[in-house]
Amino acid sequence: MIATGIVVEYNPFHNGHLFHLQEAKRQTDADTIIAVMSGNFLQRGEPAIVDKWTRTRMALAGGADLVIELPYAFATAHAPQFAKGAIQLLDALYCSYFCFGSEEGSIAPFTNSLTLISTQQQLYESAIKEAMREGISYPNALRKGYEAISHDTSIDLADLSEPNNILGFHYMQAANDIHSSMIPLTIERIGTHYHDPALPADSVASATSIRKSIFTNESAEDVQPFMPPTSYRLLKNWEDLNGFQSWDALYPLLRYSILREEPERLTEIADIREGIEFSFFRAAKEQTTFQGFMQAVKSKRYTWTSIQRMLVHILTGYRKATREQITDPSYIRLLGMTESGRCYLRSIKKQLPLPLVSRVASLSDPSLLMDIKSTDIYMSGIQSPAPTLGQDYRTPPIFV
Amino acid sequence: MIATGIVVEYNPFHNGHLFHLQEAKRQTDADTIIAVMSGNFLQRGEPAIVDKWTRTRMALAGGADLVIELPYAFATAHAPQFAKGAIQLLDALYCSYFCFGSEEGSIAPFTNSLTLISTQQQLYESAIKEAMREGISYPNALRKGYEAISHDTSIDLADLSEPNNILGFHYMQAANDIHSSMIPLTIERIGTHYHDPALPADSVASATSIRKSIFTNESAEDVQPFMPPTSYRLLKNWEDLNGFQSWDALYPLLRYSILREEPERLTEIADIREGIEFSFFRAAKEQTTFQGFMQAVKSKRYTWTSIQRMLVHILTGYRKATREQITDPSYIRLLGMTESGRCYLRSIKKQLPLPLVSRVASLSDPSLLMDIKSTDIYMSGIQSPAPTLGQDYRTPPIFV
Repeated sequence: MIATGIVVEYNPFHNGHLFHLQEAKRQTDADTIIAVMSGNFLQRGEPAIVDKWTRTRMALAGGADLVIELPYAFATAHAPQFAKGAIQLLDALYCSYFCFGSEEGSIAPFTNSLTLISTQQQLYESAIKEAMREGISYPNALRKGYEAISHDTSIDLADLSEPNNILGFHYMQAANDIHSSMIPLTIERIGTHYHDPALPADSVASATSIRKSIFTNESAEDVQPFMPPTSYRLLKNWEDLNGFQSWDALYPLLRYSILREEPERLTEIADIREGIEFSFFRAAKEQTTFQGFMQAVKSKRYTWTSIQRMLVHILTGYRKATREQITDPSYIRLLGMTESGRCYLRSIKKQLPLPLVSRVASLSDPSLLMDIKSTDIYMSGIQSPAPTLGQDYRTPPIFV
Repeated sequence: MIATGIVVEYNPFHNGHLFHLQEAKRQTDADTIIAVMSGNFLQRGEPAIVDKWTRTRMALAGGADLVIELPYAFATAHAPQFAKGAIQLLDALYCSYFCFGSEEGSIAPFTNSLTLISTQQQLYESAIKEAMREGISYPNALRKGYEAISHDTSIDLADLSEPNNILGFHYMQAANDIHSSMIPLTIERIGTHYHDPALPADSVASATSIRKSIFTNESAEDVQPFMPPTSYRLLKNWEDLNGFQSWDALYPLLRYSILREEPERLTEIADIREGIEFSFFRAAKEQTTFQGFMQAVKSKRYTWTSIQRMLVHILTGYRKATREQITDPSYIRLLGMTESGRCYLRSIKKQLPLPLVSRVASLSDPSLLMDIKSTDIYMSGIQSPAPTLGQDYRTPPIFV
């Protein structure tokens, strides 16, 4: 049986995701699509608008056969760590291929870039260090390093100023690092540009523009044309029950936790460094909205995303001491499966290098405890009705 | 000039308080009444229903000339520590008298009890230790110790099973400990018994029964007959602007902070000991209301009040390490004054043994920082409108 892996957030699952999933299946002739999906907090340092079980249902309805949770420790990390967690899980699940969406659309430029960096490692790294010393953000420093080694070459390289190309590059690098036998494959992203916030007239829109439409119009109705029917129905159900989750909704909890911790204790939180805790503390005292808070703390040294990631870690109480305990994925957390996914799992079950977790109570692991905790905190921010916590303990894998 | 000190919470200020204040003034022929008043969190481990500035205005309107904040570290502590903080502040302000309400109503039984305990110290303390070993709560152990030394004496002793007698006894003991020259005076509490929750027909009701009426009827209107008109108007204004503060309203923040800290970090919080952190963590996961939470965690070993005090400390992030830095009051925080209070202050200003704080920014002190922090967290729990924090920095002493 052939399994193809994809790495997803599905925030929410839309027609572009459906296209990618179907193409990945078609191009690899896969029997099984395995989606490694982030839990309730995402790579850009944001809560997902609907919870991980709703998004699991969307994924299964859209054609995924197995949905595996990318643990919090990787899902909310910068690109190299995010990619490492996702690729290691897909490799552990014996995928023959992994397939990612990119602006580039073909795999050769990525391979060329990887080769170039590995042969010019020293120049690359010293250019990055140099740029960091000048006080620019990490992603920009990476770009500088890349420019330093690529400016006078004529080979076809991946354009690493594009967000999906960057992730794709890190998937390839992570696969390389573990000598994975998985074959990489990329599909060009269709529809609007990733960051384009305007809804286009046809049937594909980015998740970013879909979320923007939802929050601007305070309703999900306008985004119906851009989502598969089941996905849209699940989105509406969640909205009716809980309202969409967002930083705006979670800000009172974030603000409270910053005030309660005070600057001194904030430094124990993952990613907090170089005095930014004082800026957070001041802003929490003064700002009554999340947008106001972000405007008050933004700086040249950090990207918006990296600040949001710090804030997610403050919100969930994710500490440096906990992060140091988590280097590689240590379990395979099953969120959902189809009959075909179940067959595939049965066929590889005995050779799995990591424990397969269907019930979280069966394993005590710092990374898994962090997944459970972050779910509870995600739900704590839901206003109506009184949130039910401990869902990770009560929710069995979804089977459709 | 003669100053008489009183120790108050005014939650809210009612006719019984007015009576006590007038009697204290009359019986001591005082020029100045100095009220040491708890801030936003109180001795029974609860938030005040209205904030400290509103209660300061009530106190000034009711006849107090100076309102001094009892710092958080003392205001939320058990009786001996609470009394120590209050008495030291009144002593530092050169009060000639301190006057407390009690069930007993005359001072001799308190003096007798003090003498008895100091002469039978060993028997008293060993009886307390013995009782604690049996796993009963600290107040009950104190009672056992007291019974052990008082059961075969015929002298007139204070009945230390009554809540106001207990506080009065500790005021006397605290004054004794610092060899204060203040003369103690007690006034019998009138009206309903302290814990009696039913509203009586005449004009005096306990603060407990007033709060109960407010929360049961979700309105302040029924309590108007029991409060001076200005006090009632201030209460209504606060209600209209902010709603009354309560554990029910603060529970989402408490619950979130328990989930975020996890049992391991909860043990760093003041008063948390002997594994109760696990019981708190379990209850926070399961209980959606404060009442449900308290039912789930109550135990024979701790009184309801001592559990609530632990919860206040969790809510405000008051840690053992901070508490250890605070042994005695280290400043005199002025919340409000009348013209007469200002004259008195001027007359003693040069001899004050502690810094007088009118603007909190003028002093950096762990206890004062805790007062500021607890105000911000008290306000964070106010739902409408978006709370303004940092009020301790912005609010000058109230002058009427």
